[in-house]
This record gives sequence, C-alpha cells and structure tokens, in this order.
Amino acid sequence: MKNYKLAIVGATGVVGQKMIEVLHEKNLPISEYVFFASSRSAGKSLRFGDDVYVVNELTEDSLTHNFDFALFSAGSDTSLKFSPIAVQNGCIVIDNSSAFRMDDNVPLVVPEVNPDDINWNKGIIANPNCSTIQAVCALKPLDDSFGIKRIVYSTYQAVSGAGSKGIHDLENGIKDYCFNLDDDFDFSKENQSCFFEKDNNPNNCNLELDEKTNYKLEKFPYPIFNNCLPHIDTFLENGYTKEEEKMINETRKILGKPDIAITATTVRVPVFNSHCESINIEFEKSFNLEEVFRVLKNAPGIIVQDEPNNDLYAIPTNVSGKDEVFVSRIRRDFSIKNGLNIWVVADNIRKGAASNAVQILEKLIK
Amino acid sequence: MKNYKLAIVGATGVVGQKMIEVLHEKNLPISEYVFFASSRSAGKSLRFGDDVYVVNELTEDSLTHNFDFALFSAGSDTSLKFSPIAVQNGCIVIDNSSAFRMDDNVPLVVPEVNPDDINWNKGIIANPNCSTIQAVCALKPLDDSFGIKRIVYSTYQAVSGAGSKGIHDLENGIKDYCFNLDDDFDFSKENQSCFFEKDNNPNNCNLELDEKTNYKLEKFPYPIFNNCLPHIDTFLENGYTKEEEKMINETRKILGKPDIAITATTVRVPVFNSHCESINIEFEKSFNLEEVFRVLKNAPGIIVQDEPNNDLYAIPTNVSGKDEVFVSRIRRDFSIKNGLNIWVVADNIRKGAASNAVQILEKLIK
Repeated sequence: MKNYKLAIVGATGVVGQKMIEVLHEKNLPISEYVFFASSRSAGKSLRFGDDVYVVNELTEDSLTHNFDFALFSAGSDTSLKFSPIAVQNGCIVIDNSSAFRMDDNVPLVVPEVNPDDINWNKGIIANPNCSTIQAVCALKPLDDSFGIKRIVYSTYQAVSGAGSKGIHDLENGIKDYCFNLDDDFDFSKENQSCFFEKDNNPNNCNLELDEKTNYKLEKFPYPIFNNCLPHIDTFLENGYTKEEEKMINETRKILGKPDIAITATTVRVPVFNSHCESINIEFEKSFNLEEVFRVLKNAPGIIVQDEPNNDLYAIPTNVSGKDEVFVSRIRRDFSIKNGLNIWVVADNIRKGAASNAVQILEKLIK
Repeated sequence: MKNYKLAIVGATGVVGQKMIEVLHEKNLPISEYVFFASSRSAGKSLRFGDDVYVVNELTEDSLTHNFDFALFSAGSDTSLKFSPIAVQNGCIVIDNSSAFRMDDNVPLVVPEVNPDDINWNKGIIANPNCSTIQAVCALKPLDDSFGIKRIVYSTYQAVSGAGSKGIHDLENGIKDYCFNLDDDFDFSKENQSCFFEKDNNPNNCNLELDEKTNYKLEKFPYPIFNNCLPHIDTFLENGYTKEEEKMINETRKILGKPDIAITATTVRVPVFNSHCESINIEFEKSFNLEEVFRVLKNAPGIIVQDEPNNDLYAIPTNVSGKDEVFVSRIRRDFSIKNGLNIWVVADNIRKGAASNAVQILEKLIK
C-alpha cells in the first residue's frame, strides 16, 4: 500500500485547521503532510495530533515536490495561481474555493451524492459551497425517489463560514455587550436583573441597543451580534448575492440536473458554527410522508432528527462537531401539489468544507 | 371632544410596557389610564411619561367601571375570561392574544391593510400575530397590484416575541459565554485574543461550545444563544407549529383571501428585537420590478430600504424602535413565472404588537 504525500494550502485558516483535525481523526495512509500558508502566517506552529508542524510559506516552487494530493482552502486567487502548478507536477488538487466549481472541466463533488464524478477529474476536484453541500445531501435521495421540480432556499448561516474575521465580529459584539452591562455577571443571584431594565423600573425594557460599537468590525458591514444580515458574499447586478447564485448553480451541477428551478435567500445569523436551512421543495411525483422519512433515514450521511412531540429537531449547538447532515421539521407543504418543507442543519466547517474535502481524498486513495 | 377612559391589561409585560410607551408618544384624547396585571405584578409602579402609576390587580370587577377601551396583552386565558366582562360593560377590547383572532365574529386588523374591518366589530378587535402583521403590510399592496397566488414564509424571529423570559434566556446565554471567557474584556488591547484559541495555538479554533449551561432556561427548550430553534409556540399534529399555522390562517383572513396558498417555517434566532422574514411570492399577474418598487414605496407604513450597491438593506438593529415595516432584497424569483423574493423586517414589539394595537385604538377614536 502506497503512502501518500499531502499538501494543505491555507493550513492556518478556519477550514485549513479543521482539515488537519479531520485528517488526524481519519488516519489515512499518508506518510508526509506539508502545511502551507501565506507569508503572513508562515513560521507559525500547528498541532497535528501530538506532533507540531511549522507552516511553510506558499511559493511558486512549493508544489513542485512530488505531492500526490493537495487540499486548497486559501481563497480563489491562491487556487487560480497555485493549483495549475500542482497539477502540472502530478498532484491532484481538492479545492475548497469557488474558483473552479462551475468549470465544465472540473467535477464538483459531494461523496454521498455524486462520488463517480471524481473519476473524470483532470487534476482538480472542486469542493462545493458549504450551504450547497448540506442541502444536496438531503435533496439527492429525495430527487432520486420523487424528482425535484423546484426548490426555495432560505438559509441561517453561521459566522464561521466567513472565517476567523467573521468569528471575531460576533465574539467582539458579545464581549462589547457584556462589557457595557452594569452588573457583574453574578449567576448566584436568585433573580437575574434585566439589562433592559432602566429608570429603576423593573419592567421598563429598552429593546433598542445602542447602535454604536466599541470595537472595529473586521468582516461584516454591520454588527452580526444581535442581528441578521441578508447579505453573504458580494451583490450581483440582478440583486442576488454570489452566495445565492452559488447555491442555485452548484445544486444543479451536483445533482446533474441543470433544469431544476431554484431560488435562494441567504442570511448570516449570530451563531458561531453550523448552518441551518429552511428548504421548500416541489416534487414531480406524489409521495407520502412515511416514504420521505424512510428515504431520508436510509440515505448516506443523513440523520433524521424529527420528533416534534419530544421537542427534538436539529439545532446548531447539537450538530457542531458532527459530520452528518441533520434533517428535521419534515412535513407536507399543503400550499402546493407534491410540496415538502424540511429543516437541514450541518457543521459548515466540517461537512460543509473540511470533512467533505477529506472524504473526497479518501475516495481518491481507495 | 370626548376624553376616553382606557384600561391596559397585562401592563407589566414586554408588550404592555411598549403599549404604554407608544400611548405616551401618541398623546391621544384619553383622560384616564388604568393599568392592570395579575396579582403577581399588582402593586408595581409603572412610568407614563413623568407620571408614575401603580398597577392594579385584574379581578372580575376591574373592567365594569365605565371603560371606553381596553388593550389586552396578557395571554389567551386572560382574554377569554375578562374581555367578555369588558364588552358587556360597554368597553371595546383590542386583544393582542390569539384567543379571538380566527373567530368569524371578530375582525383581525392591521390599520394599513384592512382598516374598514374595524367597523363591524362586536366589542372585540383582534391584533394579529407579530410575524403576520409585518408580512401583510408588505403583501397587501402587492396583492392589490398583482394578485398573490402562493406564499412561502421563512422567519427569523427575535426573542422579545417570547416575552421577558425569552429575553432573559438570550441575555443569560450571552452572560454565561462572557463569564467563561479567560480574558477580562479589555478592549484597549491591540489584538483581541480569540475565545476559540486553545492549546497555546493561535489558530486552533474550537467551534463547539460546551453544551452545558450554567443558567436556568426560562423559556426555550434549548439555549437560544448561539442557536436557531425551528420551533415557535407548540407543535400540532401535522408537524407544523402553532406559529406557522397562525401566519398561514391570519394572512388569509387579513387579506380577505381564504384561497391564497401559503406555507411557513418559523424560526427563533438569537436577536433581542425585530423579526425578519424571507418571503417568496408567486403572483397571478406578470410584473416588472420597477412597478414592485413603486407599489411598495407608495404603500402606507412601508419603507423600502434596498440599495445592494451601498450594502443597504433592513436589519434588526436598525429597525428596532421604528413603527414602519422595512422591505429589502426585492428581486425577481427566476425559478417560476411571476415570482418575487423579498426580505421584510419590523420591530415585532412595536408594529408587531403594541403600535398596531394603539393604531387600531386611534382609528376607533377618530
């Protein structure tokens, strides 16, 4: 059995870090790991299990040294510049950026959905957008059984999807709020006083927080703490965001169905990790709900968590850290023939990025 | 000009408090205000402008004393028990609970949408669900112009909609997070350290927060801090929540169109105040986007805030404290003939509850 040599490009980012963590968990037949990042992060130390690795600066020479595989997660510009060099030198690139996703010469792969597309790769395999990955995991088995005609996506996306700067914005917002509290966080007190209480009036609640922030926003145009921002990635001419466009185009490509009607509204919410999606589906065929439950329960990588009577449904804090895609709130949409509503939650950094890329690598090795 | 006598039932709650605030702003021709609450809150003092009022305990005798109007916001049980007494004694009740909303003998009113329904009241006028009010303000002018065929709602609802216990759950979650931070919230530091940094590794981010909470949840079955809960009000047999059912039924009743096809997914998000809604609409008639913008800009109580090029769109922190309904992200849904997506934000305690009720009162007085 061959032992492979693997490069991780963008190793110090939120996704790169998680790739390293997932690689350590998987214990693949890899004999050599080399971690790359920009000059800004080069020289930093990264843990890999009990070992400590020093991060190398990514240069034009870096990927010419007999790598079998490279996992890229350093943005589109880095992928566009450095992945051709890797490919020319015999390396297969699994790219987490959006650079090649819609390229007809590049397969866009979710291993549970279209594993065979890996086979026609010409050196680059694209890892889909996080929101798309979790959606198609749930949609593929339903499409196979009932034929999807139309999808309406509304997303609830965590800040980790925006990288460490997004995480900092939420964290600084939380700290700023606490810093401005009058009391001293004494949880031993019998009755917590309300921040909103003012004028010595125990019920005069001020629900409007001061708009000023005492911290610098690193990522988002507005505070994400205590807010919902209907704005992920940049705006396009037609009023959609790139994130919405990605969900529409990537879903079609991965399902291999360019004609599925899809629309999307993508929204950032003040959650650290794990994306949620409210998905409304119209099928070609009729169905009964028992079939839908059975199809989803038997689908690879899916956990059905849907017991309304026990208040059991998927939520970000319970899904973070897991590789499966969780499906809840499965119910008929009575407003249309063959309509269904589902609620889909997944760890956007694991299944939405790092784990999916490592699963592709696993398939390549096997 | 007559000076009226007004009762406020549930005066110490989040909505009751806001009713008092809005009443003070409006300065209506009311000569006597009497505040009622349960025995638990009776005796408390409430501010009304510069005056301080003592809250009375609500008893079966309370509303027999020549009140012209009563604003109820104390839950369905209180409304069911005490509003008939008020009506028998010549008082008109504006009820914020869900008790009478779908009663065929009770008008369900949003003043910008169906003001004339006030006229056929038989003593009780119902104030709609918060999520419904803001939706129909945006939908009514569009329905008048293009005829709504179907609506898909996905909501992003603030904790204030769940009352003071909901607010406490979010606040205690935030405090608990800060309380467990290692550092001392020093915002003078040049580089904020990341809560997720561990193992002395500046990039080893742990995105999974501890599931344990050091505080008692007062309202929600799970922490709402750092979470999205697809569960508002109780679950019904068909898998929908009562909140979702309310949005469906109340929208139809207020628009006077029992045949509009509607489905809904309602979700609680970690935001203190102001609900957001992703609304997907299918119209009967064709439209062009310029018409949609014009129709919405000319609609009463609507502010169109939609300049993607300037990153301008409605968000909870900017809408809280305002009475208008904000509409953003207005764009064609290319997945269907005559489809439109919009993003609707409003202060759920003001326009979604208190302000709408006081606006009904204003209409009654005029």
